[in-house]
Amino acid sequence: METSEAISRAMTVREYDRSKSLDKSSIRKIIDAGRMTASARNMQAWSFIAITDRDLLGKIADLSPSGRHISNAAFAIAVVTDPQNRWSEIDSTRAVQSMTIEAWDLGLGNSWVGSIDRDKVKDLLKIPRNLNILTILPFGFPTKNYKGKKSRKPFDDVAYLNQFGIKFN
Amino acid sequence: METSEAISRAMTVREYDRSKSLDKSSIRKIIDAGRMTASARNMQAWSFIAITDRDLLGKIADLSPSGRHISNAAFAIAVVTDPQNRWSEIDSTRAVQSMTIEAWDLGLGNSWVGSIDRDKVKDLLKIPRNLNILTILPFGFPTKNYKGKKSRKPFDDVAYLNQFGIKFN
Repeated sequence: METSEAISRAMTVREYDRSKSLDKSSIRKIIDAGRMTASARNMQAWSFIAITDRDLLGKIADLSPSGRHISNAAFAIAVVTDPQNRWSEIDSTRAVQSMTIEAWDLGLGNSWVGSIDRDKVKDLLKIPRNLNILTILPFGFPTKNYKGKKSRKPFDDVAYLNQFGIKFN
Repeated sequence: METSEAISRAMTVREYDRSKSLDKSSIRKIIDAGRMTASARNMQAWSFIAITDRDLLGKIADLSPSGRHISNAAFAIAVVTDPQNRWSEIDSTRAVQSMTIEAWDLGLGNSWVGSIDRDKVKDLLKIPRNLNILTILPFGFPTKNYKGKKSRKPFDDVAYLNQFGIKFN
């Protein structure tokens, strides 16, 4: 898919078509998109745990008030940050967006789950205590019901030229 | 360009070839990539100021200890966040990465400038006091000297499967 199409169409998906199968190489490509992202001083203060185990996905869903749909995902990625690096959250967020766009190119949607019982999920995934979970991203193929229509503010409401409030055009 | 190529190749660029000219439609495409990005509860708590005025670019460069190269950019984008929205920085960062990848597809590199005299730049760009500048992104065509070789941690150092520390493969 052309880059601009993937970027403009990629959107949050929370209902997944479980009839389609996914191979591990797609997960690798998605993580690689994150890995290749730029970071402050190239510190790359991130790690990515691919979660494919269905039992784990179910348990994480139970620990995520806004992420019940994780249990139905094809897989999920836990994005792990290092609070000792002051740019870790920002840089890992950049990586998340790279992964989101790469996934869309492979036909997969995702969502950003932020409401998580982090301590319990850290225990479950054996994440060291000194690291944090930024988000858990469930990925999956959109269902047939997926409309794919984005609602966004008009360009003129968010884009300015040389001065705040001055229209771009 | 294919999406995966743009994502894997996009990298920080701080030296710009000023002999190539840029049309305003490319800037619009880049901002649109940010505008179309997903955000928490679709709040879109962001705005983007395209800076094309060379006098302004020079003044902003002077106010950015780590962004002297802004003065030589084809243009820059100031990414403005709303601290009243708790997700504004994270969401705007997602938008930055969309813009970075879109720009790469158009042949333009950028860099994340974070060290800025924000109050003075806010005055310069007439940004309301209650809003913040997350970053200023200078964009430009890479020079001929640009090597385009990324240095990143090996996949196995950042990617795990089902448990922190367990190799993906």
